[in-house]
Amino acid sequence: MTTVGILGGGQLARMLALSGAPLGLRFLVMDTEPDACAGQFAPLLVGDYRDEAALAEFAGRIDVATFDFENVPAASAEWLAARVPVFPNPRALAIAQDRLAEKTLFRELGIPVPEFAALSTRAELDAALATVGAPAILKTRRLGYDGKGQFRLRSLADADAAWDALGAQADKVGLILEAFVPFDRELSVVAVRGRDGEFRAWPITENWHVDGVLSASLAPARVSDALADAAIAHARALAERTDYVGVFALELFCKDDRLLANEMAPRVHNSGHWTIEGAETSQFQNHLRAVLGLPLGATRMLGHACMLNWIGAMPDAGALLGEAGGHWHDYGKQPRAGRKVGHATLRADDAAELAAALTRVGATLAREAQVAPVVGRLTQP
Amino acid sequence: MTTVGILGGGQLARMLALSGAPLGLRFLVMDTEPDACAGQFAPLLVGDYRDEAALAEFAGRIDVATFDFENVPAASAEWLAARVPVFPNPRALAIAQDRLAEKTLFRELGIPVPEFAALSTRAELDAALATVGAPAILKTRRLGYDGKGQFRLRSLADADAAWDALGAQADKVGLILEAFVPFDRELSVVAVRGRDGEFRAWPITENWHVDGVLSASLAPARVSDALADAAIAHARALAERTDYVGVFALELFCKDDRLLANEMAPRVHNSGHWTIEGAETSQFQNHLRAVLGLPLGATRMLGHACMLNWIGAMPDAGALLGEAGGHWHDYGKQPRAGRKVGHATLRADDAAELAAALTRVGATLAREAQVAPVVGRLTQP
Ligand SMILES: Nc1ncnc2c1ncn2[C@@H]1O[C@H](COP(=O)(O)OP(=O)(O)OP(=O)(O)O)[C@@H](O)[C@H]1O
Ligand SMILES: Nc1ncnc2c1ncn2[C@@H]1O[C@H](COP(=O)(O)OP(=O)(O)OP(=O)(O)O)[C@@H](O)[C@H]1O
Repeated sequence: MTTVGILGGGQLARMLALSGAPLGLRFLVMDTEPDACAGQFAPLLVGDYRDEAALAEFAGRIDVATFDFENVPAASAEWLAARVPVFPNPRALAIAQDRLAEKTLFRELGIPVPEFAALSTRAELDAALATVGAPAILKTRRLGYDGKGQFRLRSLADADAAWDALGAQADKVGLILEAFVPFDRELSVVAVRGRDGEFRAWPITENWHVDGVLSASLAPARVSDALADAAIAHARALAERTDYVGVFALELFCKDDRLLANEMAPRVHNSGHWTIEGAETSQFQNHLRAVLGLPLGATRMLGHACMLNWIGAMPDAGALLGEAGGHWHDYGKQPRAGRKVGHATLRADDAAELAAALTRVGATLAREAQVAPVVGRLTQP
Repeated sequence: MTTVGILGGGQLARMLALSGAPLGLRFLVMDTEPDACAGQFAPLLVGDYRDEAALAEFAGRIDVATFDFENVPAASAEWLAARVPVFPNPRALAIAQDRLAEKTLFRELGIPVPEFAALSTRAELDAALATVGAPAILKTRRLGYDGKGQFRLRSLADADAAWDALGAQADKVGLILEAFVPFDRELSVVAVRGRDGEFRAWPITENWHVDGVLSASLAPARVSDALADAAIAHARALAERTDYVGVFALELFCKDDRLLANEMAPRVHNSGHWTIEGAETSQFQNHLRAVLGLPLGATRMLGHACMLNWIGAMPDAGALLGEAGGHWHDYGKQPRAGRKVGHATLRADDAAELAAALTRVGATLAREAQVAPVVGRLTQP
């Protein structure tokens, strides 16, 4: 009997536990919140990731550890790794936690990135703006998620406002200025690498964000084979260099058929949720297979799939459940503005059928704006 | 927040909980055993189904109740139904618990059944044998499962041996003598009926038993449309007459393209486990949707699927996980002779691919005998 420890007890841990149960696994989830939603289906250890006593108890009750939450302090991950196997390895985690380290590695690997410059003072912001140019985005180097810790500068004149917004965090988490990419589309590669080095990627996903938060994903993305191959090659290079084990996502901008890497998420990823029903093996099960050294499952798709995120509160389930290919995912969370509380996946054998289903769901739920870009992509000649 | 109570905490309850989690449901499982395997992923209330105090606690903590175990005493189901909604209704459960009531209802509905006769004394066994003829099977009317409580009579000369084996149970659970059906194949209809009367069936499944226990299932069964329609019509008539709500299975013998009903299982069924990966909506999720009055999900298949039962102990997972369409289900149980401890499902886009995968798995696991009949069916002209 193998017990998998998961640091962080949100929806990712919850879906990991649900999809790991058929492998005969047990789970122990650690979270600072006693009502973490993974706790509804797995034993929960409430504690702070920096509390050594809590970590020691956690380590003592598990056989292997992984993450639902990418911002677990690197020191905690290392402390744990000295006691139990931890996947992905803490070094890979540390790189993904720091936008500067990450982008520097991307460059080293020949993965194109937007212009960027690290900074920590107001004067350095001016210097960075001079190199990077405007428009640009000022971001915290660490601890950002869902578009938090970002400020968009339309022109050099926005420098003061940007500094007012984020300057106070410069010492604690560092800052980075990135060129704003006027992308045509956002893509992600969700991929998995096993303990034996085997690498597999799901078909490329196209993503739409609203206010920095993922709103919808479509797979397979309508991209050329050449572009897909290039994106997957980048993901593979990254995984091999960092000796990554498990599932991760590489987020990319695409402009005029050129790829620019945005960031790497060192965990199962929101843009891979469609794999639960839309692929032979879900990202959740493959993450666990990788972490445990089991053979990886097939990443082939079953038709076409679109994932819609539910932010703040769950809509009425009826419209979606009434669709032949409709699948519902309520994370069992309390509603709260801006919170990811669930998602839905629509699966169909062909693109036209998927577009029709999305249109119906958008109309019934009065969420036309959420489905429109996806329907547009599916019906474009 | 809705809590679903499940009477019985075995693998069916476990898979119900796992597939109900995405609907935002909570579960409470009641079982007599503290190590019931559903308890690994859902809160478990340990208690006897006949203990009113335990049932009262159970009722107080749930919104609706259903069953993993079909032999919950009818009186307990009724006691519960007076307090919370219970699906399927206790009357339907009671019919399915009694082979005589069940077969009598089948006849009433025009569903063909093998000859049968109820009996409770040694003299009545002779009388029954005179009507039913030999070969025949003597079965307990109640509380049989997995072929337990059965005795096969090759000829009238076996009457004494049959009575020695089961006569002592005549008073407690009743006995029934059934004509032995020299069937070509065994089929099942797994179907679901909603609270609003909506009815859906998955494609017909062919089943192979070894020593009375299900060994393998194949879907879709290779039967004519006419036969499939007739089988599904029988299932529908049964569900409508009993006002059944939830998933159930109708087990049928097929001889020279004639159907004879064997029995009805008033719950999700082992022959429907392939629906987890092989159908748009699994039997587990549709059972919960039905019980909760939600729209039913599509029962269409995704390709071809074969389920292999693991009895006694789990084989090595590697061979199966290494198959592109291989899915593993370890119920987290202790090994024990004759115990259903897990299953695997192989899914493929076409029949030849499925046959090839089964052949490989059979060879690697030295389980050629288990896969042979399925491969035979798949490759028959
Ligand atoms: N350089 C850029 N040019 C254009 N848009 C950008 C840029 N950086 C970020 N964005 C937009 O903001 C979104 C969120 O940015 P980013 O992925 O860096 O933030 P995050 O907080 O790490 O988000 P997540 O948690 O979703 O990964 C991006 O998906 C994109 O839509
Ligand atoms: N009348 C019959 N003629 C031929 N074979 C039979 C007959 N009745 C039962 N069998 C064989 O025994 C198997 C188990 O019988 P049955 O379904 O009645 O028992 P059970 O204990 O209720 O099983 P389960 O728990 O699998 O439903 C059948 O699937 C079939 O293979």
